[in-house]
Amino acid sequence: MSALSEGLTQILIPLASLVGIGFAVLQWFLVSRVKLSSQDSSNGYKQKLIESDEEEEGINNLEISIKCTEIQHAISVGATSFLFTEYKYLGIFMCVFGAIIFLFLGSVKGFSTKSEPCTYSQGNTCKPALANAIFSTIAFLLGALTSVLSGYLGMKIATYANARTTLEARKGVGKAFITAFRSGAVMGFLLAANGLLVLYVSINLFKLYYGDDWEGLYESITGYGLGGSSMALFGRVGGGIYTKAADVGADLVGKVERNIPEDDPRNPAVIADNVGDNVGDIAGMGSDLFGSYAESSCAALFVASISSFGISHEFTAMSYPLLISSMGIVVCLITTLFATDLFEIKKVSDIEPSLKRQLLISTVLMTAGIAVVSFFALPSEFTLFNFGTEKEVKNWHLFFCVAIGLWAGLIIGYTTEYYTSNAYSPVQDVADACRTGAATNVIFGLALGYKSVIIPIFAIAIAIYVSFSLAAMYGIAVAALGMLSTIATGLAIDAYGPISDNAGGIAEMAGMSHKIRERTDALDAAGNTTAAIGKGFAIGSAALVSLALFGAYVSRAGIKTVDVLTPKAFIGLIIGAMLPYWFSAMTMKSVGSAALKMVEEVRRQFNTIPGLMEGRVKPDYANCVKISTDASLREMIPPGALVMLTPLIVGILFGVETLAGVLAGALVSGVQVAISASNTGGAWDNAKKYIEAGVSEHAKSLGPKGSECHKAAVIGDTIGDPLKDTSGPSLNILIKLMAVESLVFAPFFAAHGGFLFKFI
Amino acid sequence: MSALSEGLTQILIPLASLVGIGFAVLQWFLVSRVKLSSQDSSNGYKQKLIESDEEEEGINNLEISIKCTEIQHAISVGATSFLFTEYKYLGIFMCVFGAIIFLFLGSVKGFSTKSEPCTYSQGNTCKPALANAIFSTIAFLLGALTSVLSGYLGMKIATYANARTTLEARKGVGKAFITAFRSGAVMGFLLAANGLLVLYVSINLFKLYYGDDWEGLYESITGYGLGGSSMALFGRVGGGIYTKAADVGADLVGKVERNIPEDDPRNPAVIADNVGDNVGDIAGMGSDLFGSYAESSCAALFVASISSFGISHEFTAMSYPLLISSMGIVVCLITTLFATDLFEIKKVSDIEPSLKRQLLISTVLMTAGIAVVSFFALPSEFTLFNFGTEKEVKNWHLFFCVAIGLWAGLIIGYTTEYYTSNAYSPVQDVADACRTGAATNVIFGLALGYKSVIIPIFAIAIAIYVSFSLAAMYGIAVAALGMLSTIATGLAIDAYGPISDNAGGIAEMAGMSHKIRERTDALDAAGNTTAAIGKGFAIGSAALVSLALFGAYVSRAGIKTVDVLTPKAFIGLIIGAMLPYWFSAMTMKSVGSAALKMVEEVRRQFNTIPGLMEGRVKPDYANCVKISTDASLREMIPPGALVMLTPLIVGILFGVETLAGVLAGALVSGVQVAISASNTGGAWDNAKKYIEAGVSEHAKSLGPKGSECHKAAVIGDTIGDPLKDTSGPSLNILIKLMAVESLVFAPFFAAHGGFLFKFI
Repeated sequence: MSALSEGLTQILIPLASLVGIGFAVLQWFLVSRVKLSSQDSSNGYKQKLIESDEEEEGINNLEISIKCTEIQHAISVGATSFLFTEYKYLGIFMCVFGAIIFLFLGSVKGFSTKSEPCTYSQGNTCKPALANAIFSTIAFLLGALTSVLSGYLGMKIATYANARTTLEARKGVGKAFITAFRSGAVMGFLLAANGLLVLYVSINLFKLYYGDDWEGLYESITGYGLGGSSMALFGRVGGGIYTKAADVGADLVGKVERNIPEDDPRNPAVIADNVGDNVGDIAGMGSDLFGSYAESSCAALFVASISSFGISHEFTAMSYPLLISSMGIVVCLITTLFATDLFEIKKVSDIEPSLKRQLLISTVLMTAGIAVVSFFALPSEFTLFNFGTEKEVKNWHLFFCVAIGLWAGLIIGYTTEYYTSNAYSPVQDVADACRTGAATNVIFGLALGYKSVIIPIFAIAIAIYVSFSLAAMYGIAVAALGMLSTIATGLAIDAYGPISDNAGGIAEMAGMSHKIRERTDALDAAGNTTAAIGKGFAIGSAALVSLALFGAYVSRAGIKTVDVLTPKAFIGLIIGAMLPYWFSAMTMKSVGSAALKMVEEVRRQFNTIPGLMEGRVKPDYANCVKISTDASLREMIPPGALVMLTPLIVGILFGVETLAGVLAGALVSGVQVAISASNTGGAWDNAKKYIEAGVSEHAKSLGPKGSECHKAAVIGDTIGDPLKDTSGPSLNILIKLMAVESLVFAPFFAAHGGFLFKFI
Repeated sequence: MSALSEGLTQILIPLASLVGIGFAVLQWFLVSRVKLSSQDSSNGYKQKLIESDEEEEGINNLEISIKCTEIQHAISVGATSFLFTEYKYLGIFMCVFGAIIFLFLGSVKGFSTKSEPCTYSQGNTCKPALANAIFSTIAFLLGALTSVLSGYLGMKIATYANARTTLEARKGVGKAFITAFRSGAVMGFLLAANGLLVLYVSINLFKLYYGDDWEGLYESITGYGLGGSSMALFGRVGGGIYTKAADVGADLVGKVERNIPEDDPRNPAVIADNVGDNVGDIAGMGSDLFGSYAESSCAALFVASISSFGISHEFTAMSYPLLISSMGIVVCLITTLFATDLFEIKKVSDIEPSLKRQLLISTVLMTAGIAVVSFFALPSEFTLFNFGTEKEVKNWHLFFCVAIGLWAGLIIGYTTEYYTSNAYSPVQDVADACRTGAATNVIFGLALGYKSVIIPIFAIAIAIYVSFSLAAMYGIAVAALGMLSTIATGLAIDAYGPISDNAGGIAEMAGMSHKIRERTDALDAAGNTTAAIGKGFAIGSAALVSLALFGAYVSRAGIKTVDVLTPKAFIGLIIGAMLPYWFSAMTMKSVGSAALKMVEEVRRQFNTIPGLMEGRVKPDYANCVKISTDASLREMIPPGALVMLTPLIVGILFGVETLAGVLAGALVSGVQVAISASNTGGAWDNAKKYIEAGVSEHAKSLGPKGSECHKAAVIGDTIGDPLKDTSGPSLNILIKLMAVESLVFAPFFAAHGGFLFKFI
């Protein structure tokens, strides 16, 4: 039996969630103390609300501040309008897909309301399949709504914080950093705590009906993962297309044709570009990681429910995944204090080390935390279900599983940093290749991306081998959870990136001085690296999560082996390995088409609005926002359909074995494509920044802005945009969503699938 | 029993080989009738040997012809010098690797000279393991030498034909086409016939020792495939690096910096560039396809030897793979006549259809050929070995297996053509994306490459499913052989490409008129597409071959299942899927580094040789050739080591199951990377040619040469060079060579492998 009593578990999990939410609210409050100007139009009196220590080079503070407020408002309105348009589609999707889930799962036993003998807990009676259909649908909706809420709140705080970061940059880089970082933390903690709380509450509510039928209970809870993950499809793919259509479109006309700087307020697409950072990198990333988190929890819970502590109803041991997440919130809370209170950022070069330190601190503390949870929450010995056989496991085995996932995450993070930060030779080599033009820049960048796959894959492989060997599929699921246990910190440093990026944009648009822009650029460069690290985490955890879901699917579909030496499985494998390419082709083409539409609109405005280039007239920002919104939502349909329909078609036509092959193939191939695409894009971006910043002798020899080298670097950066922000990260969704969808529909496929082979 | 007697089989196979060789010699003779000028230096008298029907725009025929001869001579000397330098390394490699094979296989039973009970042919005695070690080593050396010979002869005829093609272009596009095509046919038929003959003779010689021990005989014959394939490593990877280092280096300085046309004689790297076409695209491609051919034959023979007709010693049925190849030679001979004698090329637009027709004709004829061979050579019913179980197979099952491989090849070829020819919308869209610059060109090109993977993978998957279902691993092996059965025609149209490319280069260097250059450009544009088709065939067959070898490996290593759900196999799978990226990173970086060296040398010559840019002084071509030679051979060591060492390290440390996972992962992931890389590169090349040719209104709106669109297209073309000619096609070698190496060393790994897991 576990040392921790059920009663205490029932207190600790919601308590940790509430602490997390409280901490997020506190951070929000601290950010809100940075005041923006408010324009009181009733009496025409402009209130000065900014306390500035140093007067900024003769520029009227109030005017700047009003400008910043206006720009922030425009970004916020654009982002909200995108999200609300997206929610309309989401609403329809949720209804339709919810109905499909209900119908498919309900039809497994012909919508029977009769109780049935349990599959694993022998001799007992379980709830009818119809209940499974109903509760899976409810869990799906709950997961979807939680994801939407998290993304919305994250976007809100980000657009709330960006102008504040800009204004704080006037006081120094340290103040600006803290504002951006705290805002990131709001997003991180809200998401982690909400995800945990809703899952916890759902389990307890479902238990009111399911009672002792834990098999059924946790089977239907998997719907929560599917809900979270399918929203991530919209967030990541739709948001990814949005952000890059705007970015590429703005750059192609602004930087290349009109030769005006990035984020110049004369560029009609500039607001859309900044909106894109929020809807793509903040809301999209948030929904992606929330999806991973929900899925790995559900996969672990499902496997656990058919293991010894599930069958003997030990609630504390069953709740091990939730307790790990609870501990994660506490650890991340302490870690955050290191960045915001214990250390101070005094100069630009402190930023990146401080963010990196966050990763290390959270990992070290969490390792201890995992040990505590493992020893108190788990019985010292128990049996796990392992594809039809049973496996004896000790509690310290599980400690190793979770810990190795956690540390594999750190290794992936650090490797990503090495390959994408311009502090190291890989990016500098890519920058150097710009000497001979854009072509060599691209060749070296692609080679860098391919190379950056090696260490992460070894890290993932070792994590898989150890956790698989120690605790079968449960081990994989908790390893994924281990990697995601510090999600609050991971998201904080990740969200910090786009907030800084926006802050820089606002500084440029508000016409702030070069000094301020330099500070925000430094924040942004560090943000590029942390964004790449975040993507590394996201794909690493997606790989582990998918494998765990794959394992759960295989168990649920009643497959004993997935033998590559059978034609059914092999063709699944090779077609699965092809899917990431198909999907990437779609998403890249989508970005291209949407960007071309944006280019036309920006050109049109430059050509038809007199005085625009001279800065006398404002461009029509809203129209560009609308174009990005419409294009992204329309363009995401084909890739979205590919992801959602593949498991259904393969399962129904070819059956469970081929589907297993498809999932395995998509997983092993998709991870590589995703990592290489993200890192290649990140490296090009920072190679360009390296040349622009011109900090070292080498960098100076390549610059300055506008030189031939810099032009070549800009081309690389533009190519990298869809790779790193659309097609690469979207692949996480491909591999996870197909796996969780297969898991949810497994009973249906097992009962009715494989039409085509049956006919032949 | 087979309808065809053993005696007749023993006559037909060598006869077909000899017919093939005879036909190749005849084609060579026909090409040789196009005379070059010979300069008789003894009396200063210049002999005029060219019969020209129409005087070429006032240009002195003799002078042009002498120039062409000189240039051809320089190319030929450069290519020969590269090959001979390569052979030095090859010699060392063959000795070392031959010794490793002998030692590893000999040590399986401690170098015992005692006969042993057979594994499959129960109750009989087989030859000792030491004999297997000796004969495998001999077969390895034979395979290697045959490959070297084929590559050398191919290169010789190609460098013999290029200037002749240029000179014939003065008489019209039809004459030039026939010269280039006949030369390609020499290469195709020599390679197909030599490969078959040496294999046939080896089997008969080995039989003198092995007698009735067919298990041992065909096990040791697998060394032939390993030999062929390991030479392909040098040909493809070394040749690939050579050709693109020279090409990219020449373009970066010549076209971009100095603004002189492609193949301008003032460019010091121009000869190296033309040499590269011969060593990379001719010798490299030849060794690659020869490797596939040798491996698929060996895999089929090995699987057959442990099947019913192997055990009951039915020679004709055993020789089914060789008879298929024999039939292929005859079919290709007839097919060739359609291009050279039955139809005439009258205008430029006839070229591509004529080449495409070759594919279709050979496929249709061969389908009938396969039917004939299947019904006469095979017993109507027999049993095949299928991973420990037995499978009942009928002769018409095998007909379907071979035919589906053949037709899958045609589909892959046509799909490749669709995605890489500028006659269709995909390439035109890529060209159109150049309007907004190099970045969108690259984005659309990458998306095109990803998309082009879909149909070939489905074709391969269906071929695998059908042949696997009908005849297990033997089915896969003969499906691969089916795809390669028209290898002579495939190689002819493939080799036609670089010969035309060279012909164009020679025309430019010899200062021939615009009209001639237009004709050679048209030949070359069709050649780009056929080169892409050739690469499609190569990768398609490599996929099937690797799978067949994989199956043979699994049988030989005594593995019953490769279950993805075991940690050992899964980590193999994900690491295997990573290897193509690692390998591509290496090869692309190699091209980049070698190209940069070339750039420095070309710049040095332009800067230090007075009068070079004015065309008064000749550049130092030889130095550039030497740089490419040295760089390519040095740079191929890391990727070569990765391929050769991975199976050894994984097999020894992790054992046969993990190695099986690695092979499967590398296969399913590598195919995608290879197809997308080849097609992306081919599309960029032809998008550039599309803009340059300016045939349609649309194309004219993008051009002419030197426009912004064209510059963007040139950047894409340069990026595509290493993708389509180095890293992409080299992946064929990665997946095949690892598989055949694993197959040869399987007994050793099964006996002594998996150290690491044993210790844990």
